[in-house]
Amino acid sequence: MKYSKIPVAQSIVSLCVAKNIKHVVISPGSRNAPLTIGFTHHPEITPYSIVDERCAAFMALGMAQQLQEPVAVVCTSGSALLNYYPAIAEAFYSDIPLVVISADRPIERIDIGDGQTIKQKNVFENHILYSANLHSEVVLETEATDKKLQQKQFESQRHNEREINLALNKALEDKGPVHINVPFYEPLYDMVDDLKVKPLQIYPDIKQRIYSEKELTPYAELWSKAKRKMIIVGVAQPNAVEQRFLEKLAGDNSVLVFTETTSNLQHPEFFTRIDTLIGPIERSGDAEEQFRALQPDILLTFGGMIVSKKIKSFLRNYQPEQHWHVDPKKAYNTFFCLNKHFETSVNSFFQNFLDLTTPVESDYAEKWKGVRKERQQRHELYMEEIPYSDLRAMQSIVPKVPKNYNVQLGNSSTVRYAQLFRWDATHKMFCNRGTSGIDGSVSTAVGAAIISEEPTLLICGDLSFFYDSNGLWNNYLPKNFRIIVLNNEGGGIFRILPGNKNTENFDTYFETVHNLNAASICQMYGLEYQSAKNTSETEKALKDFFDASEKPKLLEIFTPRKLNDEVLLEYFSFMKS
Amino acid sequence: MKYSKIPVAQSIVSLCVAKNIKHVVISPGSRNAPLTIGFTHHPEITPYSIVDERCAAFMALGMAQQLQEPVAVVCTSGSALLNYYPAIAEAFYSDIPLVVISADRPIERIDIGDGQTIKQKNVFENHILYSANLHSEVVLETEATDKKLQQKQFESQRHNEREINLALNKALEDKGPVHINVPFYEPLYDMVDDLKVKPLQIYPDIKQRIYSEKELTPYAELWSKAKRKMIIVGVAQPNAVEQRFLEKLAGDNSVLVFTETTSNLQHPEFFTRIDTLIGPIERSGDAEEQFRALQPDILLTFGGMIVSKKIKSFLRNYQPEQHWHVDPKKAYNTFFCLNKHFETSVNSFFQNFLDLTTPVESDYAEKWKGVRKERQQRHELYMEEIPYSDLRAMQSIVPKVPKNYNVQLGNSSTVRYAQLFRWDATHKMFCNRGTSGIDGSVSTAVGAAIISEEPTLLICGDLSFFYDSNGLWNNYLPKNFRIIVLNNEGGGIFRILPGNKNTENFDTYFETVHNLNAASICQMYGLEYQSAKNTSETEKALKDFFDASEKPKLLEIFTPRKLNDEVLLEYFSFMKS
Repeated sequence: MKYSKIPVAQSIVSLCVAKNIKHVVISPGSRNAPLTIGFTHHPEITPYSIVDERCAAFMALGMAQQLQEPVAVVCTSGSALLNYYPAIAEAFYSDIPLVVISADRPIERIDIGDGQTIKQKNVFENHILYSANLHSEVVLETEATDKKLQQKQFESQRHNEREINLALNKALEDKGPVHINVPFYEPLYDMVDDLKVKPLQIYPDIKQRIYSEKELTPYAELWSKAKRKMIIVGVAQPNAVEQRFLEKLAGDNSVLVFTETTSNLQHPEFFTRIDTLIGPIERSGDAEEQFRALQPDILLTFGGMIVSKKIKSFLRNYQPEQHWHVDPKKAYNTFFCLNKHFETSVNSFFQNFLDLTTPVESDYAEKWKGVRKERQQRHELYMEEIPYSDLRAMQSIVPKVPKNYNVQLGNSSTVRYAQLFRWDATHKMFCNRGTSGIDGSVSTAVGAAIISEEPTLLICGDLSFFYDSNGLWNNYLPKNFRIIVLNNEGGGIFRILPGNKNTENFDTYFETVHNLNAASICQMYGLEYQSAKNTSETEKALKDFFDASEKPKLLEIFTPRKLNDEVLLEYFSFMKS
Repeated sequence: MKYSKIPVAQSIVSLCVAKNIKHVVISPGSRNAPLTIGFTHHPEITPYSIVDERCAAFMALGMAQQLQEPVAVVCTSGSALLNYYPAIAEAFYSDIPLVVISADRPIERIDIGDGQTIKQKNVFENHILYSANLHSEVVLETEATDKKLQQKQFESQRHNEREINLALNKALEDKGPVHINVPFYEPLYDMVDDLKVKPLQIYPDIKQRIYSEKELTPYAELWSKAKRKMIIVGVAQPNAVEQRFLEKLAGDNSVLVFTETTSNLQHPEFFTRIDTLIGPIERSGDAEEQFRALQPDILLTFGGMIVSKKIKSFLRNYQPEQHWHVDPKKAYNTFFCLNKHFETSVNSFFQNFLDLTTPVESDYAEKWKGVRKERQQRHELYMEEIPYSDLRAMQSIVPKVPKNYNVQLGNSSTVRYAQLFRWDATHKMFCNRGTSGIDGSVSTAVGAAIISEEPTLLICGDLSFFYDSNGLWNNYLPKNFRIIVLNNEGGGIFRILPGNKNTENFDTYFETVHNLNAASICQMYGLEYQSAKNTSETEKALKDFFDASEKPKLLEIFTPRKLNDEVLLEYFSFMKS
């Protein structure tokens, strides 16, 4: 075994291993050499080398998203770590444990004109769960004989160990990003064969609040009386809820369960495509009346961010009397009427809550299931009629994705198109909905693909793909990794939004039209490239796209830029009749 | 003329124009539509559309670096603006006026689960000169008749105008990055034909301190007595110092003037290549004695960051009695002995100071000029002998760069190799030395190329190039833009540093070896591509590389990865004899 000679570097590596961190994404640098040495020589760590720190952090995020365990990123001092920030914000809002470890110069070298030196202390303050600012000590060339010096070094080391423990524990306890900033004196490359430190161990305190019958009874009484109860599930991990609870909810005629593609929660009785229900109501002559009929008495939510803007808008205007959110960590007042946060896991909540409730007579679910059925028929009718477009391409893709795929969706239009379809129950669906950025979709998918036992498919738009094409710059792409780029020559989402379409100004500054394609990038990074520009080519390409291959593969589907928005907007109007 | 209907958007655009901002780099988004509408329709603004915000900010930085005037970047809400951070830190340490304008959601929509929403307020706190957090008001559909509401809206608008003024003034006064965060209510796309606002104007207060004779006399007396005075010039704009002051200093035998490539300050008597002087002394048997002879009594510095690590290390060990820094804004204690900050421009300082000084007898300059002459001879001898390598390639490049070129250097090894050569006095030399990052070299050079009247050449390493290759994703590359990539298949700098070379661990995690080339990227973004892999190919390629062309051009010079470090390290040993 090789260790860095620097005690604090030894402590960081040892404590990461002790807390069960197994994957560490390292970006090249000199100041972080003590950490690189430590992590890359440790048998229990799988290290990865990624040059672009923005990609490194998103890749680690994708790994942690799959593992639901902390993954660490390590970089040198200076602007390097600022490139982590987009992924840190995503981790913060998506509750993903990302451990950021940055090397720094000793404090007396900051703001004196040294290279690659910035104010790293607390630099992510707005979006971090814990910032551990470690102390640095010179590693003496000779044994310290001075008692006071010995004491000072001992105290520094103990302070550092405590801070490292607290930061790592926070990532474990609250599932989010933490930052450990560690200054190092030179020399940076010295190695030793034996571990000098035996770090203090502070164990994480993972709280699981259990609600008593007394606490739950008043809510159970409200629930038992209410004839219209709506459950909305935001972003969630696959299998987040036990099947028996799902069955109970599915069988209750007073309960409507709305899920999204990213909820990873499937049941034949649930409403998986919110926008196909709400969108047409918005366009109806009797929208007010229909919304009143849909308005719940009680809204129960769990999971993370909700993708559908339509459901948010509906519930902000037609508020439930009660909005309860179940989550051990946080509750957003998404509809401006949150009045209860159950600070526990959803399984623990249902376990204790459902038995306290009694059935109530209601036709709420039945009524809307009828509407849902009509919508499904209209959807199929529309899909048969429409011309080649983003929506039509998605219609080709969804049924062709083999079972058990891990599907990563790009933001903006991709995730919204994906929401209009019913995906196979074996698909695990992910999207960076914490900040809904387009800045790390490729890297996140790559990180997931590396970790996931199932093959991974990324579907994203052209802007997301080119933005983060550095995500493919690595030696870790599995052969079975697949990418589908929906290339509509710009930011198709902007055509769906209001604004002055088809002016030069719109094309340049909103849609940002381009004529790039992904072929060169595939050539550069060793992916097999295919393209399609109509439905038959798309379907032909998809036939063997998921077959085993020597290289990862990318399929670029070119869609007609100026038609996509019309097809989508017309969809909701068509659905209403 | 078209304006956004939203008053605060009108105020921002009007005030930017009033403060003489002419260039605005816009990234696509919906929340920032009011700003995009305003800036793209204004006849006095040249707008640019860049998708990747990291590149957008570095491109604006490159423009502002050339103009020495503020350039603005505009983006949507969410993680978009976090991608600006690397360029903001660079602007902070390089004293470049970069105006960051981010659209935000209204405050009541933050942290309630809305998409693309983060905590934007003060998010760049560690590295920003001013953060203006604006208020948002709903734009009423009908005329406000309620007096209290009218008053509230009036006060908000006035608050916003004051904050916008203060932020823009700070960028002008102190030459650095500022952040204006502006929340917008929907609708975002409404336009009007007439400007509704007439914003408050607060003029910038650009201080120029003039030192009196009384203040300067004690320092002039010290100066007049000292027989060994050293001047070191950090990063500076071309023509930063008047020629008459340079002549006076050049003719003073008690003064040694050390400049760097990035000082943009040339005089035949000055020492332009610090490392060729110091490097060989470090390796001498009598280093101590030579350093004692070189140690100055007074050190006078001006300009920004100093590239040479060797001069920093020397002066930290052989400290001058006096270290004075001249700069209107800041003074770094780079050598741990700073005892005077003259808070004024260098011209104003010399204007008032030099006349108060009297000559002193000294052989300081003469002695070292003799050494310099020997070094120059050894340098030429060495260059004739060495095999093909990074150093040899740079030797081929430097004399071939046509006069009056704007040369942008990549960080890490490129700038250090460049420092070993004497560049033509008509070359303007730039490098992102604020944070010395590799994260924005391409984009910065592109920004400079767009603005500069002279043609621009970027020289950078392979990692810098691939890291920021999105910098080429735009429609603004001038035909005469040139890039030379020194491709040594990884981070060559790491081979120069200590560490365990030629192990698999080193190759992967430090040098990050790859076998990429720039051809695909050139194909994608429409650059003419050439490559060379030995001296004769390099010199052949350089013959017509700078000739007029239909497309911008890139020359990729492949150098032998495992030889480069030996050639460089041997250089300093060879020079000493």
